Amino acid sequence: MSGQEFFSKAFHSPDLKFYRHESPFTLESGASLPEIQIAYRTWGTLNETGDNAVLITHGLTGSSDADQWWKPLFGDGKTFDATQEFIISSNVLGGCYGSTGASSVNPKTGKRYGASFPLITIRDMVAAQRLLVEFLGVKKLRLVIGGSMGGMLVLEWAVMFPDMVESICPIAVSGRHSAWCIAISEAERQAIYADKHWQNGEYDLESPPAAGLAAARMMAIITYRAKQSFDIKFDRNRQPDNPDLFSVESYLRYQGRKLVDRFDANTYITLTKAMDTHDLARGRSSYVDVLKSISQPTLVVKIPSDILYLPEEQDELAAHIPNAELGVLDSPHGHDAFLIEGDMDALDKMVVGFQRRIRSEARTSKSSQ
Amino acid sequence: MSGQEFFSKAFHSPDLKFYRHESPFTLESGASLPEIQIAYRTWGTLNETGDNAVLITHGLTGSSDADQWWKPLFGDGKTFDATQEFIISSNVLGGCYGSTGASSVNPKTGKRYGASFPLITIRDMVAAQRLLVEFLGVKKLRLVIGGSMGGMLVLEWAVMFPDMVESICPIAVSGRHSAWCIAISEAERQAIYADKHWQNGEYDLESPPAAGLAAARMMAIITYRAKQSFDIKFDRNRQPDNPDLFSVESYLRYQGRKLVDRFDANTYITLTKAMDTHDLARGRSSYVDVLKSISQPTLVVKIPSDILYLPEEQDELAAHIPNAELGVLDSPHGHDAFLIEGDMDALDKMVVGFQRRIRSEARTSKSSQ
Repeated sequence: MSGQEFFSKAFHSPDLKFYRHESPFTLESGASLPEIQIAYRTWGTLNETGDNAVLITHGLTGSSDADQWWKPLFGDGKTFDATQEFIISSNVLGGCYGSTGASSVNPKTGKRYGASFPLITIRDMVAAQRLLVEFLGVKKLRLVIGGSMGGMLVLEWAVMFPDMVESICPIAVSGRHSAWCIAISEAERQAIYADKHWQNGEYDLESPPAAGLAAARMMAIITYRAKQSFDIKFDRNRQPDNPDLFSVESYLRYQGRKLVDRFDANTYITLTKAMDTHDLARGRSSYVDVLKSISQPTLVVKIPSDILYLPEEQDELAAHIPNAELGVLDSPHGHDAFLIEGDMDALDKMVVGFQRRIRSEARTSKSSQ
Repeated sequence: MSGQEFFSKAFHSPDLKFYRHESPFTLESGASLPEIQIAYRTWGTLNETGDNAVLITHGLTGSSDADQWWKPLFGDGKTFDATQEFIISSNVLGGCYGSTGASSVNPKTGKRYGASFPLITIRDMVAAQRLLVEFLGVKKLRLVIGGSMGGMLVLEWAVMFPDMVESICPIAVSGRHSAWCIAISEAERQAIYADKHWQNGEYDLESPPAAGLAAARMMAIITYRAKQSFDIKFDRNRQPDNPDLFSVESYLRYQGRKLVDRFDANTYITLTKAMDTHDLARGRSSYVDVLKSISQPTLVVKIPSDILYLPEEQDELAAHIPNAELGVLDSPHGHDAFLIEGDMDALDKMVVGFQRRIRSEARTSKSSQ
């Protein structure tokens, strides 16, 4: 397996690195992958005690390049301060930005996995990410932070590796994928399946199910926004160069094309199915009991205009996680607000405040010992 | 043109009748159809003065058979009381349940219109429906009532033919299609366009773009419901006979297949595009001024859980239509509540109350003259 394996058309930073685990990786389902690769980036330096690390987990179509998609959170005194911390961001297992996924070559066959890539879960992603974190010499993660699918990984990190994780920040997410979210995932997948190039996932990367993936993305973009957001941006305006087209239609088509250029359809299927399996309670105890078992200081961020992961789902997380506080990201733009210019500054301030509070509490409690 | 022209696989009542307008019908766009047919049903008897008529307008995939899809509103003392009123329900122009639309034969070519069916508007639908109503000898419509796309026709009826319409009840609708709704329409259309059988609309009715239309329907069904509705019905349950499938996925697939069996893809495109043009203000005056010009007693029905036509849009209608009252259909099921068993009884009571009030007011004002 080449260390340069990733979805051919995707952007990637020249600083992208690859961790290779060259022995079988057993999945939650019992199936296994003969070996795995995790693409990652780091910023800053790990201290000698290995306890100044921060881990970023990305959303469905995100990548390791958090300095691109979360730029306003990077910098001196910000959430990700490379002068103080060792910041890690990795592409999830199953992704197409350099980690092993459906668009990677299966070393057993010498061909791309495609539709044969096995079903994976959020827990599998976390288990793979842990291998990377240990490889990097990290002993403690000061903070694990991410939104949407990334928030699912954040919550699983806290439950799966409580001794390693010192604080968490799950954003715009729930502790288990609702029927609502599963339904949306499934409708999107069906648009991909409808495409003439889909061929049960056995398509060539050069002629992917582009129209179906674009339609799925359009549906997704709608659920990432909110009525008010579209009203503000587009109203009933028409395209100046094409009065038959509403501006919002033109925008959606552009978003659809853009994703097709940077993402793989089988990967979209793999990751949305993994999200559908997300359930902190699976094989453990009751949902509430699992939430109660999360002992880390937690900042749950909710976006009141989110129609995908509804605010009451974050309220529920914050109500049951014993050491949780609730941060409200007030934006008209819906679920995606945590990735939207302007709203990201507010998010940064919220997380910085949270981290300062818990570190000052930790110091106080240490000095009073 | 045969009087039996309609989408071949669609259910239709044996009582379906056809009104034929055998001369050109000019559309708002300036284009024209060489002739049109409107499929309709009636219940009860028109009185001698022709003023006991009630008109029902259906939603996107509805039909003339209102006694099927609005059954709980039919009966003695109910909204549609055939012992008292002459009730009319017709399939919209552009539809596939017997009215002229994309699945009809173009008399000029002897072939189905298919993708060549022209763009139409809600106003075109109302103009065509008016021809039917006049043909039936109706002088006054006591009430024009409908939800969703039907509500658009209701509002246009009040504005286009104010002297003919005595009261209106628009349900779960807005006075102009929002960017939000246009976006959802467009994502659904793109799923149809992605289907291998789509062929730019030149498909054979025997091999339609079924998978794309099904995916579009799944997206639509999601927007017709609400998170809470899916939580109540499905939660994270799996199918007993297929544990790989969530119950909500199975439900959506079933809904997709069901629509494919009864609806035509080109018609879906025609009608969603017509809905996108919906704007009471187009070519008239300001939106608020048009609403202020609606003089009829109006019952605006809103469903607080509706995520497609948001409650604030009905609030806006009720705030500006001078003689309007707001009825609240409190249901967890979202937009579709006006068509859902249980909620329909509440809707019926609301409309019956509204009609009693305005008739008693009319009597009072007559006797005091």
